[in-house]
Amino acid sequence: MPETAEAATETAGLLPEPTRAEMRLEQVLSALSDPLRLGIVHAYLRDAGGEERACGWFKIDRPKSTRTHHWKVLREAGVVRQRQVGLERRNTVREADLDARFPGLLDLVRAWDPDAA
Amino acid sequence: MPETAEAATETAGLLPEPTRAEMRLEQVLSALSDPLRLGIVHAYLRDAGGEERACGWFKIDRPKSTRTHHWKVLREAGVVRQRQVGLERRNTVREADLDARFPGLLDLVRAWDPDAA
Repeated sequence: MPETAEAATETAGLLPEPTRAEMRLEQVLSALSDPLRLGIVHAYLRDAGGEERACGWFKIDRPKSTRTHHWKVLREAGVVRQRQVGLERRNTVREADLDARFPGLLDLVRAWDPDAA
Repeated sequence: MPETAEAATETAGLLPEPTRAEMRLEQVLSALSDPLRLGIVHAYLRDAGGEERACGWFKIDRPKSTRTHHWKVLREAGVVRQRQVGLERRNTVREADLDARFPGLLDLVRAWDPDAA
């Protein structure tokens, strides 16, 4: 049980995710190997300022079921954290965890040019 | 046309591959997201000393058609170079190209622990 009100707020509504130690390189690479998912992480790193962002912020022009699938793949690989707040899911990229486990990987995502595809 | 005998030898039998500029991050990540393919690159980086290695050197316990498929995925992403010499295909990991385009990526492959899967 969270010991402080702040910790309780931070973990409230967290969707299932691997711990830092449970992350697997092949799974993270697979999650990032799709251009739409790579674009989500790229946009977050570029423009989100490390804040939680609702799914709508990412402006993904795909059916809801498709979007939900892609978010799930990212979350289950450990790339993003999702928190359910009412009807909204709020997302962050797990930068500290990824930098600790796979140093340099997020730099490659930052340097990625979506328009060169 | 190669201008020297040495250049002719180096390019003889090269199978189709992207140029360094044509490599795409998402395609490279996809190629590396399979444990068998990640294992091929990991083994090469650890034990091949930068030399050409025949497919048999990698001791992959899968049907030939499966092995051929995985090599093709790696080659078409630009991760490996394959040269046909008689009946044999000789393979190298394109370390210089990958380091230039995606710095740090091969360090993650080197650090990967296949037994933790």
